[in-house]
Amino acid sequence: MVKICVLRLGHRKIRDQRITTHVFLAARALGAIEGVLCGEKDLPIVKTVESVGRQWGGDFKVKYEKNWKRFLKSRKKQGWKVVHLTMYGEDFSKKTKEMDKGNWVVVVGSGKVPFELYKMVDCNLAVTNQPHSEVAALAMFLDRVFKGRELGLEFGGRIKIVPDKCGKVVVRGKNH
Amino acid sequence: MVKICVLRLGHRKIRDQRITTHVFLAARALGAIEGVLCGEKDLPIVKTVESVGRQWGGDFKVKYEKNWKRFLKSRKKQGWKVVHLTMYGEDFSKKTKEMDKGNWVVVVGSGKVPFELYKMVDCNLAVTNQPHSEVAALAMFLDRVFKGRELGLEFGGRIKIVPDKCGKVVVRGKNH
Repeated sequence: MVKICVLRLGHRKIRDQRITTHVFLAARALGAIEGVLCGEKDLPIVKTVESVGRQWGGDFKVKYEKNWKRFLKSRKKQGWKVVHLTMYGEDFSKKTKEMDKGNWVVVVGSGKVPFELYKMVDCNLAVTNQPHSEVAALAMFLDRVFKGRELGLEFGGRIKIVPDKCGKVVVRGKNH
Repeated sequence: MVKICVLRLGHRKIRDQRITTHVFLAARALGAIEGVLCGEKDLPIVKTVESVGRQWGGDFKVKYEKNWKRFLKSRKKQGWKVVHLTMYGEDFSKKTKEMDKGNWVVVVGSGKVPFELYKMVDCNLAVTNQPHSEVAALAMFLDRVFKGRELGLEFGGRIKIVPDKCGKVVVRGKNH
């Protein structure tokens, strides 16, 4: 399977706390392997995502990274490609069809994104050219890249939900 | 095309302001026709979405509704069906294949959802059984229901983005 790392760019501690948390939780649930927090340092977010992982399983981790440019350059040297989700970009639905191998860093901005980023990535992709939500864009992007296979992931956590027509069935205990 | 109304349940004014805004902006961008805000009254959200519509086009509107139960009952009487997105529900990917006609209210909760809702809806559907984000869940749900056709929607607004490989190309003027 393709390896995906989600980089949240330009996080603002107070304004973005919940959106950034949703970005990382969606990344985890939808098959990304790691998250990188850039912008203002915000360890409670890292801890929240860690705590979800401890209970619900999987290996997804978030780390804080002060210098996004250095991080992206270093990943590129290691052979990763970089995609930036932006409403100004090209239609994601064509490109994601070709993203069936390799390692990708997906950059999800917050507020104004430095123009430098547009130039240093392999592609700038738009999930519609309308203003909406980076969480929505990321989720649709991952769903297309993984072709729905992410829905079958097993996380092996201590908490597991048994899908139910009309209720909450939760199994707790050792790792499932 | 299927008609979709997105109902945000149990909105909390301070805690949920940005997430609820993202719920409605994603709903608009991805082909829903209307939004309904329930929970704490929060007119700035209604205004934000209105203002996006004025500039970017389309007919999507949000209204505040104090009594969600009455609203759902009334829509059901008019022949609408109701789906609730919840991590406890059944796999959405099977059900959405059959949702190719009719009118649906999609309920997206916030915080704890009253058990009464689980019982009064036509289906409780999960977009993965992992904790993540109602914005992500809604986006993937709409993308599946509309089978990607929502990406071709034309909004005819005063502002329009021309998709670009590496830049921001914005056309402003009369309605496009």
